[in-house]
Amino acid sequence: MNNAPIGIFDSGLGGLTILKALQKALPAEKLIYFGDTANVPYGSKSRATVTQFSLDIAHFLEQKGVKLIIVACNTASALALAQLRKSCRVPVLGVIEPGAKKATATSQNGRIAVLGTEATVKSGAYRQQILKRAPKAKVTQIPCPLFVPLVEEGWAKKPLARLTVQEYLKPLAKTGADTVILGCTHYPVLKPVIASVLGKQVQLVDSAQTLAQEVKTYLTQKDAQAQGKGSLTIYASDAPERFKRLAKHILGTQLKTVRLKKLNA
Amino acid sequence: MNNAPIGIFDSGLGGLTILKALQKALPAEKLIYFGDTANVPYGSKSRATVTQFSLDIAHFLEQKGVKLIIVACNTASALALAQLRKSCRVPVLGVIEPGAKKATATSQNGRIAVLGTEATVKSGAYRQQILKRAPKAKVTQIPCPLFVPLVEEGWAKKPLARLTVQEYLKPLAKTGADTVILGCTHYPVLKPVIASVLGKQVQLVDSAQTLAQEVKTYLTQKDAQAQGKGSLTIYASDAPERFKRLAKHILGTQLKTVRLKKLNA
Repeated sequence: MNNAPIGIFDSGLGGLTILKALQKALPAEKLIYFGDTANVPYGSKSRATVTQFSLDIAHFLEQKGVKLIIVACNTASALALAQLRKSCRVPVLGVIEPGAKKATATSQNGRIAVLGTEATVKSGAYRQQILKRAPKAKVTQIPCPLFVPLVEEGWAKKPLARLTVQEYLKPLAKTGADTVILGCTHYPVLKPVIASVLGKQVQLVDSAQTLAQEVKTYLTQKDAQAQGKGSLTIYASDAPERFKRLAKHILGTQLKTVRLKKLNA
Repeated sequence: MNNAPIGIFDSGLGGLTILKALQKALPAEKLIYFGDTANVPYGSKSRATVTQFSLDIAHFLEQKGVKLIIVACNTASALALAQLRKSCRVPVLGVIEPGAKKATATSQNGRIAVLGTEATVKSGAYRQQILKRAPKAKVTQIPCPLFVPLVEEGWAKKPLARLTVQEYLKPLAKTGADTVILGCTHYPVLKPVIASVLGKQVQLVDSAQTLAQEVKTYLTQKDAQAQGKGSLTIYASDAPERFKRLAKHILGTQLKTVRLKKLNA
C-alpha cells in the first residue's frame, strides 16, 4: 500500500482523457494533474523545448511527493521520456509504450496506423516501439493538427468533425491497416466519429484506456495501490478559468477548482 | 530617409500576411520578422504571459537596430501594446487600431463584427477601439480557434474550411453587421471563403492591408522611408524548418532561410 499521490501531466487539457480513465480504473488514488496551458501545444515544438517544459513540471510534481509520474501527453512521451526517467527519482510512465504494445497485440495483418500531432509523428516514437515488438509491421503515421481545437471547441459531434476525420484518414484506405492508434490524448473524444468513418473491420487503440490498465498492473505488481478515498487536484500554468470551461468537453463534468501554478516562478 | 530595418513580430506564422502586405506597399524597406514558434499560439494565453513574450522579442528587435516595431499579432496587440510602448525606445504599431479605424469608416449601419482568437476577443480591444471612434456602434465578437490550424494545414480552399466558416459565422446573420474585421493575421488566407459565406453586402476589413497602409502613412509623415533595395530576414524561436514549410501556405512562395533564435538564451 502507498497513499502518496500520482502525478499526471499534459501540455493542456488532452491528458484529462487519461485522468478520467485512471479515476475509473483506480478510484482510491490521489491524483495531481498539471496542464501546461502556458506552453500548449507541444505538438508543433522541438525536442529541446518540450523536454525543458516536461522536466520543470516533473520536478514540481516530485516536490508534491508523488509516487509515480504519468506523462499523459503523446508529444512529451515521444520526445522527453528518456530524459525524464534519467532526471526523476520516481518511476515515469508514458503513453507511447502501452499504445504500441496494445496495437501489436491487436493487429492481425501487421498493418498499423498512428494518428497524432505533428511532433509525435515526426519523432517516430510509435513506429519505433511497434517495430521493437513486431519487426515486420507496416506502420503508417498521420499528423492531424485540427483534431485538438475541434475537441476543445466541443464540436466532436458536428458534421465538420466527420469531414475533418475523413480528410485526415483518406490515405488509410490504401494501407490496409486493421489497427489504428489514437496517438494523442485529445483524440478519444473523437473516437465515435473515427470509428464510424473507419468501419467495424478496423480496431481502435485508445491511449487513455491502455495507459490506465498499465498503471493498474504496475501498482498491483509493486503493491503500491492507495487505499481509502481518492482525490483530485488540478494545476494549470496559465488561464485556469479557460481550462475549467474547456475541461467540460473532455470530462463531461464540471471541475470544481483549477489552481494557477506558473513554471519558473 | 531612414535605412534602418523595420521589426515585425507575431506568435508564429500569421504575421506573414502583414509581411507580405508590407513588402508590396514598401518594397525598399529592410524587414526583420520574428515568429515566436516556441510559444505559439498566444491566443489561448493570459495577458501577463503574452506581455512577457512580447517584451523579450521587442528587445531583441531593438538590439537589431530597428526604426519601428510592428506587432503583427492581434493577441499581442490586444494584450501587450501599452506595455511595449512604455518599454521600447522606438515607436510600436499594433494591428488593432488601424483595423478598428478602417471598420468604423467602412460601416454604414454601425454594426461591426470582429473575428479573432479567444484572447483577442476576451481582451475586448477591438470593441474598445471601435467604441472610442463610434460610441453608438454595436460590436459582435466571435472567437474562431479552428481558423489558424486550418490555414496552416493549407486547407483554406477545402469544403471543410467553408463548413468551419459557416459554423463560426452562424451568429452573424442575426446581428445585421455590414462590416466584419478579420481580427487575426492568419485570417486573410480565409478571406475568399469568408467573403463567399457572408455575401457581397458585408464588407471585410483585412488587418494586413490596413496595417501596411498605416505604416506607409507613418513613414511618409516622419520622412523615414528607406531607399534602395529592400531585404528580408526571418527568425523563429523554434522549429525553423516547420516554419519554412508552412510559410508557403501563407506567402505563396518558398522562403530561402529561417534562422533559429531562442528567447532567453
